[in-house]
Order: sequence, then C-alpha cells, then structure tokens
Amino acid sequence: MELQYALWNRRTVRLFNQQPIADNDLYTMLEAAQASSSGGNTQPLRYVVIKTPEFVEKVFLQCRFAALVQPKRNPRWGVDAPTAFIAVTVEHAEPTPVDYAVCGGAIMSMQFAAFSLGLGCCWIGAFDKNKVREILKLEGKEEVLFLVAVGHPAEKPVLEWIEADGDIKYYLDGDDTLHVPKRRPDAVSRRL
Amino acid sequence: MELQYALWNRRTVRLFNQQPIADNDLYTMLEAAQASSSGGNTQPLRYVVIKTPEFVEKVFLQCRFAALVQPKRNPRWGVDAPTAFIAVTVEHAEPTPVDYAVCGGAIMSMQFAAFSLGLGCCWIGAFDKNKVREILKLEGKEEVLFLVAVGHPAEKPVLEWIEADGDIKYYLDGDDTLHVPKRRPDAVSRRL
Repeated sequence: MELQYALWNRRTVRLFNQQPIADNDLYTMLEAAQASSSGGNTQPLRYVVIKTPEFVEKVFLQCRFAALVQPKRNPRWGVDAPTAFIAVTVEHAEPTPVDYAVCGGAIMSMQFAAFSLGLGCCWIGAFDKNKVREILKLEGKEEVLFLVAVGHPAEKPVLEWIEADGDIKYYLDGDDTLHVPKRRPDAVSRRL
Repeated sequence: MELQYALWNRRTVRLFNQQPIADNDLYTMLEAAQASSSGGNTQPLRYVVIKTPEFVEKVFLQCRFAALVQPKRNPRWGVDAPTAFIAVTVEHAEPTPVDYAVCGGAIMSMQFAAFSLGLGCCWIGAFDKNKVREILKLEGKEEVLFLVAVGHPAEKPVLEWIEADGDIKYYLDGDDTLHVPKRRPDAVSRRL
C-alpha cells in the first residue's frame, strides 16, 4: 500500500466484522510501535496484546466509544465489537508528557501498520483505568496509558477538509457513513 | 513509497544538506498532521512553519541534539543544519496528557509524510521553551509542545532489533552510520 494513500485514507474504525486477527498481524503492529520515535531512544513503552475472547470482552466492557454518534457507533459484543486490543503501558506510576507523546507516536505507527494489513483500529482514552489495570493483572507501578481496539473493519469513515470556522463535529450521513471534518493546514498554521 | 518500507526504514535524521525545501512539501506534512487521530476530533494542535533563514537559525540555536553521539551529530549552521522547523503548539497554557499524545501522533504522521517526499526529520524536545516562545512571537496562552527539524537528509541511520537485555544506546560505527537499537516486540509485550 502507498504511504500517501494511508496518510489520507486511514481513519478510526469502530465497527468490526468478527473474522479473527492473525497473530502475525498483531506482532507487525508492535514492531511498528517499537520502530517509532522515542526521545533519547529510551523506549518507555510496554504492550499487552489481548486476544483471548474472555479478556477482550472484559476490556471491551470498560470502553466508551464516539460520544457524538450514539448508539450507532457503540459496537455490540459478538456482533461488531473489536476482536483484539493492544494496551500500551509504562513501567512507572507517573507517566511524563514525553511518555504520552511517544505513546501517541507509537499508536499512530501501529494504526498505519494495521491499515496496511487491512485491519482497522480505534485509539481509546475513555475507559476505567483502575478496572482495566485489574483485568490486565498489571503489577507494581505499571500504568495503562491507552487502549487500541483492533479488528477487520466493517465501516469506512471519510475525512472532510474544512475551513477555520467549520464545524469539527463528526457525524453520520443518511448512508450511515461517518464523516470526520478536519481543519485545513491554512486554518491552523502560520509562517515565519 | 510503500507504507511498510516507511514503517521500518524511516529514522530520525540530524544532518541535512542545504537544498531548500519546497513550500508544498511542508504543507503536505501539515495535512498529514491534521489527518492524524485526535481524541473526540477536537484538534487541539496549531503549527508554526519556520522557513525564513533568520528565524530557522534563531530556533536552531535553542536546540540540543543526540547527547550520546557528540560532536558528530551536532549539526552546524549553514553546513548540515536543518533548513526548516515546524513548531507544534496548543492554545492553552496547561497542555493535557491527551494533547501530548495527539501531538506525538501528529508528529509521527508528519515524519512519515516527510519521508515519502525524500525529506528527513528530527523530533526535538530538548530546547528552551521560553526563548522559542519569544522567537515565535507566541501570544496569550499558546504553548510550544515540540519542534520538528526538517531538511534533505545527509545521513541514513539504521535500526537494529535487540533482545530484552540488549543495550538501547544508539552509536556511530566506523563508517559514521548511526545505529538505533530497538527492543523486539517479544521483549516488551505479553499476551492475554
């Protein structure tokens, strides 16, 4: 797949078909995360790959999806829910701003790797961290930063470029396609 | 360019030749940043594209590069320094962990876009934020999160996969090639 195609066409996916994910594809996502930029090459991130249905369901039940397009983008367990999660963690109780930035970069790299393999992802920040910590049996000071839901996509959201005064609220059209308005570079940048 | 080629072969570049960067290429990098994931699609990031040599030099002088491979990876102004910067900012004085994560994702997307255009980047967190704020003439509560140095690459660092107990310190070999050791997924992940 062309990189530039991926840059403009990869979008967050929240509905999935229930075809299982190959172990090797999840491994490739982790390789992309590890190959990603890391300040001073310190590599603070750790990962828990959650693929056993029992654990996937437990984690799934702690997640909240896409507040603005409910209930249509609230995936249902066993129908159109993600079939795996990757939890990204750090091994210390007080993650730094740089940890969060490196994590964001790693998650973008994972999402691009997934897209190149025909998979879709949803980067999730809205979940009960303490409950997920228990489900994942994290020990010591290890802390979950974010979850990435993974699966074979059952929707194809589209990007819309908007001007500075455009409405950034994502929405579903009459054909149940999710539209994601993004401000054009000119609207959010200046030059020196 | 193939996406998977970019995932494994894009690396941080710290030495640049002095050929100017096309305006359109910097615009494409900003498009990639804006097309990147944003929690709730709130798009908190703003950008300052710094391309006028006077300002590029001022920003350059505030940056510190690659502590472990000095002085060979300390670029020299007018010789092998970056020829542009993109500063990523938020419009509020107290950036949140999610702002940092979204910023990390946007910077990875920019770096992939740059790589597809034959450009190299160095994501920089080690700079004097107050001085850069003054140079960029930021007003109100706008805060710089990170800088991205950009230019036509004059080095080609390589990734090395290492085991859990491998040394993560990057190093220069006898041919002045920078090696960047990254822990294999197996060394930093577990499964549920």
